[in-house]
Amino acid sequence: MSPSGTSPEELGALATRLGYALDPGQVRGMADAVAGTEPAVTALRRTAVPDDVADPAHGERRLRVDSPTDGADVLDRQWADQLRGTWSGRAPAAAEQLERLHQELGCTIRVLHQRIGSRTPDSPPRLLEGVPFAVKDVIDVAGVPTTGASRTREHAAPAVESATVVARLEAAGAVPVSKDATTEFAVGGPHAPLTGACRNPWDTERWAGGSSTGTAAAVAAGVVPFGIGTDVGGSIRLPAAWCGLTGLKPTAGAVPRTGVIPLSWTTETVGPIARDARTTALVFGLIRGADGRDPRTGPLSPLPSVQPPADLRGLRIARPGGYLTELCDSAVRAGLDELVGVLTDAGAEIVPGEIESAAQALPIGYEIVFTEAATLHRDDAGRWADYDPVTVARISKGITTPAVDYLRALQFRTRLQTELDAVFAEADLVVVPTTPATAPRLPDCTVVVDGQRYPLYAAQSRATMLGNLTGAPGLALPTGFAPDGCPVSAMFLAQPHDEATALRVAAFFQERTGHHRRVPDRPGGHR
Amino acid sequence: MSPSGTSPEELGALATRLGYALDPGQVRGMADAVAGTEPAVTALRRTAVPDDVADPAHGERRLRVDSPTDGADVLDRQWADQLRGTWSGRAPAAAEQLERLHQELGCTIRVLHQRIGSRTPDSPPRLLEGVPFAVKDVIDVAGVPTTGASRTREHAAPAVESATVVARLEAAGAVPVSKDATTEFAVGGPHAPLTGACRNPWDTERWAGGSSTGTAAAVAAGVVPFGIGTDVGGSIRLPAAWCGLTGLKPTAGAVPRTGVIPLSWTTETVGPIARDARTTALVFGLIRGADGRDPRTGPLSPLPSVQPPADLRGLRIARPGGYLTELCDSAVRAGLDELVGVLTDAGAEIVPGEIESAAQALPIGYEIVFTEAATLHRDDAGRWADYDPVTVARISKGITTPAVDYLRALQFRTRLQTELDAVFAEADLVVVPTTPATAPRLPDCTVVVDGQRYPLYAAQSRATMLGNLTGAPGLALPTGFAPDGCPVSAMFLAQPHDEATALRVAAFFQERTGHHRRVPDRPGGHR
Repeated sequence: MSPSGTSPEELGALATRLGYALDPGQVRGMADAVAGTEPAVTALRRTAVPDDVADPAHGERRLRVDSPTDGADVLDRQWADQLRGTWSGRAPAAAEQLERLHQELGCTIRVLHQRIGSRTPDSPPRLLEGVPFAVKDVIDVAGVPTTGASRTREHAAPAVESATVVARLEAAGAVPVSKDATTEFAVGGPHAPLTGACRNPWDTERWAGGSSTGTAAAVAAGVVPFGIGTDVGGSIRLPAAWCGLTGLKPTAGAVPRTGVIPLSWTTETVGPIARDARTTALVFGLIRGADGRDPRTGPLSPLPSVQPPADLRGLRIARPGGYLTELCDSAVRAGLDELVGVLTDAGAEIVPGEIESAAQALPIGYEIVFTEAATLHRDDAGRWADYDPVTVARISKGITTPAVDYLRALQFRTRLQTELDAVFAEADLVVVPTTPATAPRLPDCTVVVDGQRYPLYAAQSRATMLGNLTGAPGLALPTGFAPDGCPVSAMFLAQPHDEATALRVAAFFQERTGHHRRVPDRPGGHR
Repeated sequence: MSPSGTSPEELGALATRLGYALDPGQVRGMADAVAGTEPAVTALRRTAVPDDVADPAHGERRLRVDSPTDGADVLDRQWADQLRGTWSGRAPAAAEQLERLHQELGCTIRVLHQRIGSRTPDSPPRLLEGVPFAVKDVIDVAGVPTTGASRTREHAAPAVESATVVARLEAAGAVPVSKDATTEFAVGGPHAPLTGACRNPWDTERWAGGSSTGTAAAVAAGVVPFGIGTDVGGSIRLPAAWCGLTGLKPTAGAVPRTGVIPLSWTTETVGPIARDARTTALVFGLIRGADGRDPRTGPLSPLPSVQPPADLRGLRIARPGGYLTELCDSAVRAGLDELVGVLTDAGAEIVPGEIESAAQALPIGYEIVFTEAATLHRDDAGRWADYDPVTVARISKGITTPAVDYLRALQFRTRLQTELDAVFAEADLVVVPTTPATAPRLPDCTVVVDGQRYPLYAAQSRATMLGNLTGAPGLALPTGFAPDGCPVSAMFLAQPHDEATALRVAAFFQERTGHHRRVPDRPGGHR
């Protein structure tokens, strides 16, 4: 028994009345998805909400900085100089390497040869002058189509202007060299329409992770020092984890989404994927801040320095158990132990901190994502036959979400934010496994935890969705390698707008360990 | 064929699955409401939305003041002195008069004898020291229950603290003397559970209008100089119109709703009802501004002076036709003509300005209101048997709204805001009939336009909902009297956060005309 009809036929008829023309297979997929989330939605329906926080805008308000402090972002100029020293002028080489890498991995939708010029020699070099970077192909670069890896957009009109984040990096001198493979519209299956599954540079029999798939692959292979991805349920942090990289999902509203194909207004953020925390921090400092166009961006406090301190005395870290750690491969757990060991050896203190409702975050986050995605893809409902079937199976669930359930899900955000507030009253950071296991094996993309297989979507985003639903920032960082040779990862979850603490502590860890510096022994890379 | 099921039985089954237990009569009412709005919802489904404004937060952003100018609100101290001179110390008399007036009109749920003290004689008088005012009983006054005119709240626990608006007026010395009759939860039928239909002081065979029913009746009868109401589709402006008063629905987010029983986050505002524009402006100046608790309030620019100017040269007024004026009694039209005549005689210019999508505002506004109301009343779904049947018939429609339709309705706000922007690029104010006819006749509350009867809900809010849906402020002001002896009214619609222009021009009109000074020849009033 589904929430919105008594049978697949009725659900299909409802979808048709709402203007979505689905074929019988798509209707069955939708009905399965509806039935699959019924327990979570039933629990949500039973969640009472106090009148005084009933307005879903309460969730947004907690993400707003009411009194921005005067001052500018502290950018790590020393690190920028080093990065520029290594990478400036390498854009043409990166483009060539990407062509080769794509043959092996399927990581690139378009190489941007036309963006690669040479710097005017008599102007002083800008912060990232000539440094190449990769761009997930849901983000506009002026002059080329933004495909979202969809057949329906393969021959779309070229973007008239670049997304805010791309334009800001270009203004700092950086050079976008690729539009990268992604799952369709950042929501479809690993076997994406335009590229197939993007293979993992650490093991080409595995997936690179998604949805910022090709971006992570290009950075991991050493072709570019960083890339820009998007994250609606873990789509920056998961490929970062599975490719041995550092990936930041910023606070909701910190980075403008102008010029990005929208999937879910409530949960989606744009952010960097890089080898290390200092590059991640530098790029974040350059792309953050309101652009006057994305309605969810507003004033921010200046980004403080992310220079790693001499020690970590005074730092309080919560390491919750329960849902967030119970499904976890022993290699992932060992990496987490190493991270925590380095931090506590440097004076950090472990404090209690449990997030009671963490298990609800995943299905409720998806409830919001798929409902918003179904709304956004409504005008294209006549072209769903050309979509990746996984895209349709996932987002069609949202067609039949009753508004009262969608709104209850938004109200639930506030409850979860309140729980996080309580944890962050005692802790500066929360540390959890980014995802339960190493990279999923192709072709079926199951996740293997201590020998047991789990379906991708049930396993991968258990911890990451918590940040998308609440808006809190999350930083994935490499913590070593499993016996299978693939990277493992931990995630710092920080208070809204406190990315700097996570970045600073990650940089501290990376000063003392070498996991993030390892590069896979594969062709195509810059090493 | 409904959007959410194929039959009333299926809709009822869906409601049950969603946790709303409706009896067969309630299911029939819901099915009728769903069927009734089907044409409007179908049109809404066919409305395409460009990607770059798809996020419903675009609608909220247009209501935010990004760079507040330094400075304080200009309060009309001269008018305050006059008001205090007339009204200070009259709270005990007002309370007594209200007891009598309630016998005749059914306007009061509770007289607040316990709030009426005497001012400490040695402190200097505050702006509204000792001035009595009325409070719609969906707004908290500390120490007494807030009933929302519902049997389910008749014996509710007393409010712990006063609503922000009440607390601010009390801080200015004013004295709340009554919790006023309203339709149940500001959404039920005219024949409200705790009081019956509140009669109109101008003709006791007519309704005072709603949902700020008793508040308008008390002000019209001359018992208090002003009252505080709420407006989700016209609930301040309609009773103001039908009782010969001035009523302001402020810009969404200008006045905190903390301590108000919520009905619809998107459309609802709190505002003043008074005899004249200068009192309305004074009260508005005292209650506006963020309180740090209502998440939809933010920084505001200071309220400029609303002192009426010497003439109106330079003022541009749009007087749209079409849907906003086509259903309009000739007496209402005559009042509008008089208003426009006074303004143009003083130098104002009439400019073109049509709002193409105005006809869609009413059903789409209700779509949002009822969906949000159904969400808010979900936790009380077990007590709907004790609700006013009209409340259930109206808000139960929202149980089955698909989220994709609700979100499309929020996206439609932006389209309508864009149309208003175009009008306000050429005009300072838009003037329309507040409502098509004089006060509805009891007991059936039909509206009579030039001898023809129309159902209340289809007719009353044609113009007012435009402001609730877009967030733009609306000011209803009396423009004379119909041959039936009842008041007629016009409405100024202004740009978001430009209440001052509407108030200033209304004050100019009221300096030159006497309609707003007429008081009905009924017992109970202060004259």
